[in-house]
Amino acid sequence: MNPRERFLSACRGEPVDRPPVWLMRQAGRYLPEYRAVRAGVSFLEMCWDVERSVEVSLQPIDLVGSEAVILFQDIFTPIPGMGIEVDFAPGPVIAQPIREARQIEALRVPDPRESVPHVFEILRRLREALEKREIPLLGFAGAPFTLAAYLVQGSGSKDFSILKKWLQTRPDEVDALLEKLTALTIGYLRAQIEAGAQAVQLFDTWAGLLDRAAYQRFVAPAHRRIAAALEGGSAPLILYIQNGSHVVDIASESGADVLSLDWRVDLRSAAEQFGRRVSLQGNLDPCWLHAPRERIFEMVREMAEAAKPARGHILNLGHGCLPDTPVEGVRAFTDAARALGA
Amino acid sequence: MNPRERFLSACRGEPVDRPPVWLMRQAGRYLPEYRAVRAGVSFLEMCWDVERSVEVSLQPIDLVGSEAVILFQDIFTPIPGMGIEVDFAPGPVIAQPIREARQIEALRVPDPRESVPHVFEILRRLREALEKREIPLLGFAGAPFTLAAYLVQGSGSKDFSILKKWLQTRPDEVDALLEKLTALTIGYLRAQIEAGAQAVQLFDTWAGLLDRAAYQRFVAPAHRRIAAALEGGSAPLILYIQNGSHVVDIASESGADVLSLDWRVDLRSAAEQFGRRVSLQGNLDPCWLHAPRERIFEMVREMAEAAKPARGHILNLGHGCLPDTPVEGVRAFTDAARALGA
Repeated sequence: MNPRERFLSACRGEPVDRPPVWLMRQAGRYLPEYRAVRAGVSFLEMCWDVERSVEVSLQPIDLVGSEAVILFQDIFTPIPGMGIEVDFAPGPVIAQPIREARQIEALRVPDPRESVPHVFEILRRLREALEKREIPLLGFAGAPFTLAAYLVQGSGSKDFSILKKWLQTRPDEVDALLEKLTALTIGYLRAQIEAGAQAVQLFDTWAGLLDRAAYQRFVAPAHRRIAAALEGGSAPLILYIQNGSHVVDIASESGADVLSLDWRVDLRSAAEQFGRRVSLQGNLDPCWLHAPRERIFEMVREMAEAAKPARGHILNLGHGCLPDTPVEGVRAFTDAARALGA
Repeated sequence: MNPRERFLSACRGEPVDRPPVWLMRQAGRYLPEYRAVRAGVSFLEMCWDVERSVEVSLQPIDLVGSEAVILFQDIFTPIPGMGIEVDFAPGPVIAQPIREARQIEALRVPDPRESVPHVFEILRRLREALEKREIPLLGFAGAPFTLAAYLVQGSGSKDFSILKKWLQTRPDEVDALLEKLTALTIGYLRAQIEAGAQAVQLFDTWAGLLDRAAYQRFVAPAHRRIAAALEGGSAPLILYIQNGSHVVDIASESGADVLSLDWRVDLRSAAEQFGRRVSLQGNLDPCWLHAPRERIFEMVREMAEAAKPARGHILNLGHGCLPDTPVEGVRAFTDAARALGA
């Protein structure tokens, strides 16, 4: 089985010889070769630079043995096209945070092929580069709630309390904002698939801040709309909710093909409870990649075993690689996946 | 039923007329009267100032209608007595973070009655002030894992990755550190009870960063030891694990009398699954206190209803009051609790 067949089969719950493997944020600062390509350019320049983006997207294949490639971009890539200025300092900073209904009304839902053509050029080149190696290509987008949290707050935050307050005080405006971001996300993911992405991952980084009732009311509908809009297409949808162990059951009903689990989720329970409905991805704590190589092998075996009741399992972390993640730990992780097939 | 009887009965799972109510960090910056007392003194000075600490501890009774009082101090109060210098800038800063085994060996486990006598003077005065009003007095301590996370990291952090790495690479040193912090915590809580605390809450702010296996290995044993050391005494133990919705089942077996739940936990499920073993406390998202008064009343009714299968329920938040928490929201919360008894 080649890596592409293995990956797509695992997404769809079809038989595989062993779990496929890749790591969230595998193209990142922990790699010296990534830092070399990043040197001298800003993060935004890097995202718009087709050559550099292609290069860092591909690095993890040979450098750490990853068996899938994900588009190098940021979740904010499609946002300026809506009429919102975003900078990175180094976290995202919104020049004019959304605080009034008229700002929401003024938001455009652009055709991303016109507003961010570089994304699709990167995907086309990646697809071409990967074709011979039979490695799957993933696209991705930030989920509407997470994007809204930043757009309203204006920057990163521990609790994104401005949007959270609005859920109680201005729910109609939140709905209007989420509506536009959902439309944007659907168009953006469809265009990525059209340009060659063979699976797409939706990152809901901050939805896990909500209690179950608020998640059900404000987050789940957008996931369902996005999944429904992509359904029947050629590319499976992977849904990741950071710190979302309390909403896994709701997320499992989103219509996504794969649930990407935070490390806090008990993989075995999730596999037993929801694994017939969705495939699972994850979910090692990235900090554990500091463990000795043999211990990483052991943890990978445990994960694969725990996920057995699920229709499919993709080995991954429960969160992205961190700047201080050891390269040898990442290498051990992918080697351990290959050892499962031996 | 007076507030003290109601509170202690709810902790022990004995019948009550309605759920008692108080709020974590109810003596905090959201209160103008608290800010007035804090004006001109540092946080450390404030903690050591018996008059001021007594005053702010008592404020929430009349200002927002709280029906329990918790000692005003910081989780780091007993730490300098171990030989570790702590400052606040404004978050905790450890002058010499623990990075070597010899630093752990050098830690003292002091008698807190000698190292922090002011704490017990505050408790004695509070108990006297509360006696006529029949309001219960709570003591508290930071849990060993949370204290260790700061002592090793040196300051606040998003992921406390240094201690987390040690769990994989230096488990014996972590055990030694947790051992000393557990001994400290037991002595500190016992001395608080001796000085008048009628219940004590253990705050494990960062244990929720761990996956279930690491929580089971490094966190749960300390909770069990502390609960066992206090068992049979006069003061119930309340255990709070921030962001710990994935370990509620493990925490419910700690031996604590009450589990204080993060807002992410589904209160009804917790009540049904663990509520015969432990009483529950919580668990409204503090952000929801921005909601209109009628909506807060509705949410409090829903919580009380959801918690019915539990042997006892104390109305509280799922996290402490925030600096921008509206005073009228807190007042609505306690009024809503009283309305349940009408």
